[in-house]
Amino acid sequence: MSEASETYDLIYWPGLPGRGEFIRLVLEQAGANYTDTAHVEDGMRIVLSYSSTDNHGSPVNPPPFAPPMLKHGKHTISQTPNILLYLGPRLGLAPSTEDDPIGIYHVNALTLTALDGLSNEPHDTHHPIAVGDYYEDQKGEALKRAKNYREQRLPKFLEYFQRVLSSETSRGGEYLYGGQLTYADLVLFQTIDGVSFAFPKRMSSLKESGKYDKVFALHERVKALDKIAAYLKSGKRQKYLMGIYRHYPELDDE
Amino acid sequence: MSEASETYDLIYWPGLPGRGEFIRLVLEQAGANYTDTAHVEDGMRIVLSYSSTDNHGSPVNPPPFAPPMLKHGKHTISQTPNILLYLGPRLGLAPSTEDDPIGIYHVNALTLTALDGLSNEPHDTHHPIAVGDYYEDQKGEALKRAKNYREQRLPKFLEYFQRVLSSETSRGGEYLYGGQLTYADLVLFQTIDGVSFAFPKRMSSLKESGKYDKVFALHERVKALDKIAAYLKSGKRQKYLMGIYRHYPELDDE
Repeated sequence: MSEASETYDLIYWPGLPGRGEFIRLVLEQAGANYTDTAHVEDGMRIVLSYSSTDNHGSPVNPPPFAPPMLKHGKHTISQTPNILLYLGPRLGLAPSTEDDPIGIYHVNALTLTALDGLSNEPHDTHHPIAVGDYYEDQKGEALKRAKNYREQRLPKFLEYFQRVLSSETSRGGEYLYGGQLTYADLVLFQTIDGVSFAFPKRMSSLKESGKYDKVFALHERVKALDKIAAYLKSGKRQKYLMGIYRHYPELDDE
Repeated sequence: MSEASETYDLIYWPGLPGRGEFIRLVLEQAGANYTDTAHVEDGMRIVLSYSSTDNHGSPVNPPPFAPPMLKHGKHTISQTPNILLYLGPRLGLAPSTEDDPIGIYHVNALTLTALDGLSNEPHDTHHPIAVGDYYEDQKGEALKRAKNYREQRLPKFLEYFQRVLSSETSRGGEYLYGGQLTYADLVLFQTIDGVSFAFPKRMSSLKESGKYDKVFALHERVKALDKIAAYLKSGKRQKYLMGIYRHYPELDDE
C-alpha cells in the first residue's frame, strides 16, 4: 500500500542537513513527492511559525516541540524517529506488517540507537554544556567530551551495528534487518556519513582496523543506491556546516 | 484487544528506577502480569547476558544495545520509547487505532520529547563529559551544565507540556492527548517525579510560579490513580539513587 503519490511537506531549518536529512533520504529513496522548507523562499519563517511557543496546535495536532516536522494531509507529525516510523511502512521502507508484525519495532529500535549514539552524541561533542551557546564558549569541555566520544562511545556503537549486521535477523549482512533495505539503513548511512565528516581521522583509523567492515560496507551500499546516488549529486543535498556534524580539527584524532 | 493476561519480562538493572521505571508504570497501570529483573535473585546476571557483546540475537531478534529490554513470548523488544510503543496499544494505554489511527504517533512524539528533555538531559547534568566516568571527575562541567539545564532547558520543556495540556487535542487538560490516560502521561509523571527529586529547589520555584500548573497537576493526578498509588507505596517502587535522577545539592538552585 504505497502512498508515494501523495505530497509530504518537510519542515526543517534551511541551510544544513541536520535531523531533516534522515527524513529527506527516506522520501528520496521512496521517490515520494515532497516539499522542503530548505528550498522554499520563506522556509525559515515557516519553520519558526511551527516551532514557536505561539503554536497551540490544531484540532487534530498537538503543538510540536521542535523541527523536523512532517505535514501530510491534515496531520503534522514531529520527532525524527517518529516521522520515520510514520513514513517507513507507508513508503515500503519497513518490514511488511503481514509477514512480520514485530519487524517495525526492531527497525524502530535500531533507528533510535543510531540516532542516540551517532547523531545526538556527536552533536554533544561540540555542545557539551549548553545547546544555545557558542562552541567557542564551551571548547574546553568539548575537547574532553570529544575525546571520550572518539575513544569510548563511537567504537561501542560501531561494534553494535557490526554485530547487528552479523546477526541472523540481518539475513546476510547487507542490511540491518530482514535482508531488505529499511529506513534504519538510511539512518545508519547518514550517521556514518556525518560522523565521518566530523571525525575524519578517527573514522579512517576505525575503518582501517577492519573490525567494522560491515558497517562501512553498508554506508557504501546505500550511497550507491540509484536514487540516493542521484540525490547526493543533486543541489538538494546540503553541505555539513554548523549543524549536528561539525568538523573542528581539534576535536578529531586517530 | 487486551493481552494483559500474558506475561511480560522486564530486563533492567536492579537497584534503581532508571529507564525501566517508564515501563514498570505502564505494566502496573495496566495490571499486566510481569516479571522484573529488579526483583529476581540473579537479575544482574540476566541483564548482563542480554546486554553483553556476546549476545548475537536470535532467529527472530536482533541483539539489543542496552537495557531496558522487554521479553514477550519469543520477541525481545529494546529501547525505552519503542517498548512503550509496543506495550501502549496492547495494554489499552494508547489511542484506539480504529477511532484515531494517527494518535499513536502523537503519543510517541510526546513520549520522545519527555524522555529527551526530562530524562536524558537531567542525566547529562551529572555526566556531561563521560557516561562511564564518576560524577566527581566531571563535577566542574556538571555545575555548568546543570545551571544551563535549570535556567534554560527545564523551563522550556515545562512550557511545552503546559502548552500541550492547553491545546485542543488534550481535550480538557487532564491528560496530554485525546482526553484519556495514555502511556505518555505515565512517562511525564515519572520524569516530573524524577526531576523534582534531583532539583527540589528549582522545581519548587517553578511550581510556585504557577506557569506550569497543568503539568504539576498531571503529576498529582497520575500519582493518585489507584494502581499507580498502590504501586508507589509498595516495595516494588525503588528509591532514586545513582541512576538518571540524582540529587546533588550543588547542582540545584532556585
